[in-house]
Amino acid sequence: MYKIDFENMAYALMEAEKSYNEGGLPIGSLMFDHELNKHISSGHNRRIQDGDPIAHGEMDCIRKAGRRHRYNTVTLYSTLSPCMMCSGTIVQFGIPRVVIGENINFRGNIAFLEKHDVKVTLLNDEMCIKLMEKFIRENPKLWDEDVSGRDHVWNV
Amino acid sequence: MYKIDFENMAYALMEAEKSYNEGGLPIGSLMFDHELNKHISSGHNRRIQDGDPIAHGEMDCIRKAGRRHRYNTVTLYSTLSPCMMCSGTIVQFGIPRVVIGENINFRGNIAFLEKHDVKVTLLNDEMCIKLMEKFIRENPKLWDEDVSGRDHVWNV
Repeated sequence: MYKIDFENMAYALMEAEKSYNEGGLPIGSLMFDHELNKHISSGHNRRIQDGDPIAHGEMDCIRKAGRRHRYNTVTLYSTLSPCMMCSGTIVQFGIPRVVIGENINFRGNIAFLEKHDVKVTLLNDEMCIKLMEKFIRENPKLWDEDVSGRDHVWNV
Repeated sequence: MYKIDFENMAYALMEAEKSYNEGGLPIGSLMFDHELNKHISSGHNRRIQDGDPIAHGEMDCIRKAGRRHRYNTVTLYSTLSPCMMCSGTIVQFGIPRVVIGENINFRGNIAFLEKHDVKVTLLNDEMCIKLMEKFIRENPKLWDEDVSGRDHVWNV
């Protein structure tokens, strides 16, 4: 863990809170280039806001980073453990490191990421856990629609 | 194989050709509800057109289908074998069947899909192969940027 990881996760959490305030799923993400020491992009889940089922926080963040040839110098931050769509994307794009806010509310696919040589840092941060917990309690149907209906731990 | 599979793949190929004519990657996709016997959506790769790295053909098609609670009645068609982003999405969303135009120009992740109980039909259609081959010959750098730089056969 590095100091920058806490700062970047705090920013990703701010994205999650922004989404919550818009009525959306409170999952935020940030892409940071650790070679350039530079914030590349950030984003949040937009399923509700844009009617877009593929716009998970990580996907919105990767989309906003625009076209790149390689991702070997970036770390991706997500307030919640990545689903199989986002995990497949991380592996396909060759993102070497992911920092995860929490995997209590959604287990996600840490074993899959690690099997494919992605370095994973799991924080289980209290603020990430509480915000997600609150949304799930208030919106069980939206949560089921987004991913919880498919919260398998996929065999890897 | 069903007659409808050839019709739907021909439509997905039309989407691929449309993308080629726009200067984009010629990969098309279609979602068909086999219970309702209904074309739900279609799309094509938009990396070049929209500067959007996550807009592979399959993703554009799934996005255009809009918000759904479940995908258990749909078949997804793609002119090219799905990369790990698209394969992860198919598994996460619970799409039960995928029909693939070809896996000669990109191997993709058929074993991964099958391991996660997705039924895969591979056509290796000549027209899909030739269109992709032509684009790769003409645009090796764009092809490398999109996926070929990461054409691993991921362990499953």
